[in-house]
Amino acid sequence: MGGQFGNWNIYTEGLFPSCQRPFGRVMPSYFRPHIAAIAGHHPSPYLQPGSPVIKLNSNENPYPPSPTISAVLQNLDLEYLRRYPDANANEFRQAIAAVLNVPVDWIIVGNGCDELLHVVVRACAAGERQVVYPTPTYMLYPLLAEIQAAKRVEVPVEAESCLPIEALAAANGAVTLISSPNSPFGHAVAIAELRDLATKLTGVLVIDEAYVDFAEETALPLVEEFENVIILRTLSKGYSLAGLRLGFGIAHPKLLSGLFKVKDSYNIDAIASLVGAAAMRDQAYKDACVTKVKALRSKLAQNLQQLGFRVQDSQTNFLLTQLPQGNAGQIYIALKDQGIWVRHFNQLGLADKLRITVGTDEQNQTLVEALIHLV
Amino acid sequence: MGGQFGNWNIYTEGLFPSCQRPFGRVMPSYFRPHIAAIAGHHPSPYLQPGSPVIKLNSNENPYPPSPTISAVLQNLDLEYLRRYPDANANEFRQAIAAVLNVPVDWIIVGNGCDELLHVVVRACAAGERQVVYPTPTYMLYPLLAEIQAAKRVEVPVEAESCLPIEALAAANGAVTLISSPNSPFGHAVAIAELRDLATKLTGVLVIDEAYVDFAEETALPLVEEFENVIILRTLSKGYSLAGLRLGFGIAHPKLLSGLFKVKDSYNIDAIASLVGAAAMRDQAYKDACVTKVKALRSKLAQNLQQLGFRVQDSQTNFLLTQLPQGNAGQIYIALKDQGIWVRHFNQLGLADKLRITVGTDEQNQTLVEALIHLV
Repeated sequence: MGGQFGNWNIYTEGLFPSCQRPFGRVMPSYFRPHIAAIAGHHPSPYLQPGSPVIKLNSNENPYPPSPTISAVLQNLDLEYLRRYPDANANEFRQAIAAVLNVPVDWIIVGNGCDELLHVVVRACAAGERQVVYPTPTYMLYPLLAEIQAAKRVEVPVEAESCLPIEALAAANGAVTLISSPNSPFGHAVAIAELRDLATKLTGVLVIDEAYVDFAEETALPLVEEFENVIILRTLSKGYSLAGLRLGFGIAHPKLLSGLFKVKDSYNIDAIASLVGAAAMRDQAYKDACVTKVKALRSKLAQNLQQLGFRVQDSQTNFLLTQLPQGNAGQIYIALKDQGIWVRHFNQLGLADKLRITVGTDEQNQTLVEALIHLV
Repeated sequence: MGGQFGNWNIYTEGLFPSCQRPFGRVMPSYFRPHIAAIAGHHPSPYLQPGSPVIKLNSNENPYPPSPTISAVLQNLDLEYLRRYPDANANEFRQAIAAVLNVPVDWIIVGNGCDELLHVVVRACAAGERQVVYPTPTYMLYPLLAEIQAAKRVEVPVEAESCLPIEALAAANGAVTLISSPNSPFGHAVAIAELRDLATKLTGVLVIDEAYVDFAEETALPLVEEFENVIILRTLSKGYSLAGLRLGFGIAHPKLLSGLFKVKDSYNIDAIASLVGAAAMRDQAYKDACVTKVKALRSKLAQNLQQLGFRVQDSQTNFLLTQLPQGNAGQIYIALKDQGIWVRHFNQLGLADKLRITVGTDEQNQTLVEALIHLV
């Protein structure tokens, strides 16, 4: 390439001197009509490792991943990279199967849980085949429906209440998405409620257990009872591997058969499969990290309550807390100015609250100190 | 979990003793109606590194990836894995930008080129917004249209002929997919032909340059001239990184804006971004490998011609060769029985041909020796 292509940079100045499309004919839309209306997903800015920011806004685990991963990386045979990877990522699937005591063919793996959410929606929903979920919830859910041009049904819930089973069942989505434990509330839905919902739905019930490693129970047994239930898990939270993009789903092979048709054939790279397998095999390390996070969660909740904050019970690695003065938006900004990032949702029922990831003891103490001076 | 879930394995025996769905009510279809008809993509079986098979069926590079990658893996700070990755994979994008001399905001990166093909089709095609491509071509193209429930228009071409520009333009796809250099033929489409086609289309023209590292020229300058053109590249072939799943697209930011809405926000993991950047920066190593592959391609072509095989000119790392007796299917099986895997397409115009990846000199010689005894 080189200097002969002089107009590369001009787009950012708002000019298109040599592009043929914008001039001389009516601009076509390259995209499906609904795509233009999508705002897209805008993740928080990326911070390089070593940044002094105390990052308590994305529910990352404060502890590093299993040290066994370093050995995997150091001893990696580059032949694994030269060749196409195992399309079924069996190294990783077998490690999951051994830990959860499920057969390998009940497992589908994804480039993050997000990819599996995309796959389920693409396979099952579109137009009147609608996507149903309680709100507030994970912000990807509405976006998935928008991308797919599927009708959305949002069923409002409040923190302390049970799932509105009848409303969710009445909507009878092609896909119903339940995050449990839920973000941003942090509570888990009772298994009996999920079972009741599964019984009433004729479409697919996705139970997104991203935070289950910090919870008291799992809905996993439901996949044995209901072939329309899929449980999603991630290695981003309990296993401290958000940067690796690994998630998996567990469901009846009949349900997985349709999902396998839609997913990219080589969606998991060779390194991720090996690293993910090593992380799964080191349950003792993960359990130790989770135990520490849960203890710090209790301590942080107490400290916040001492400041007059109301704190929701949490089965996750974050706390949703209601500020005594209700000025959560201001406090969010003041904390950010001090290099402490937490999460504020400027929406109905959440505007007076902050979602705070449980950090290390030192990080949590710094946060609490800052709050003492702000409230 | 454990022994209490006794029916996990029973599915494979064809029984569903406790699943509630298959009994007692009419089976719903969980999937969109067209999904049932999709056969899906069935990659060749996975071979562990160290397998004695001579694998010349998937167009992998016979040489290992850049040795600079080992240092990246050995020195990786696990903090990169604990935290969510850079959603824009800027480490990798910046390395691409520097090599190709394009601005970073003209680049989109994908979990393999395959993911980017999915993204383009999802953003642009569905129903009557059709997907158009010449055949034979990469077998993912029809599958992408099937998954998306988009009408397909296939325009047959022959190895030596030019692109049927008028037929492709008349179909006026929402997405037109051109692989150049093409698989399975191995030839490249002239830039003038691609320019002619870009001028005539109102939809998106995808020029899939997976094999461009082995070719004489690139269509990259067309993205400057046409905002409806996207060039796709992969690190699977020239860079020997098929196992890492890294591809990228180059297009006008206006076209990329719609694609960014559809792609997974964290589609590239932190390791892949760093490893991909290292591979891009080591152009000297990649160029040396490519030079060796091209020399071996010439030698293999000569050897095959000496056996009476007709060999297509190739701008890729494989050769499409027509067997003197036309018995390609038999020879394919006989080679496989000897542990030499090549590719046979049992379809019109290809049934008498084999597609053979250029291997190491030793692998190619073993293949030629085997063929001497078979033909």
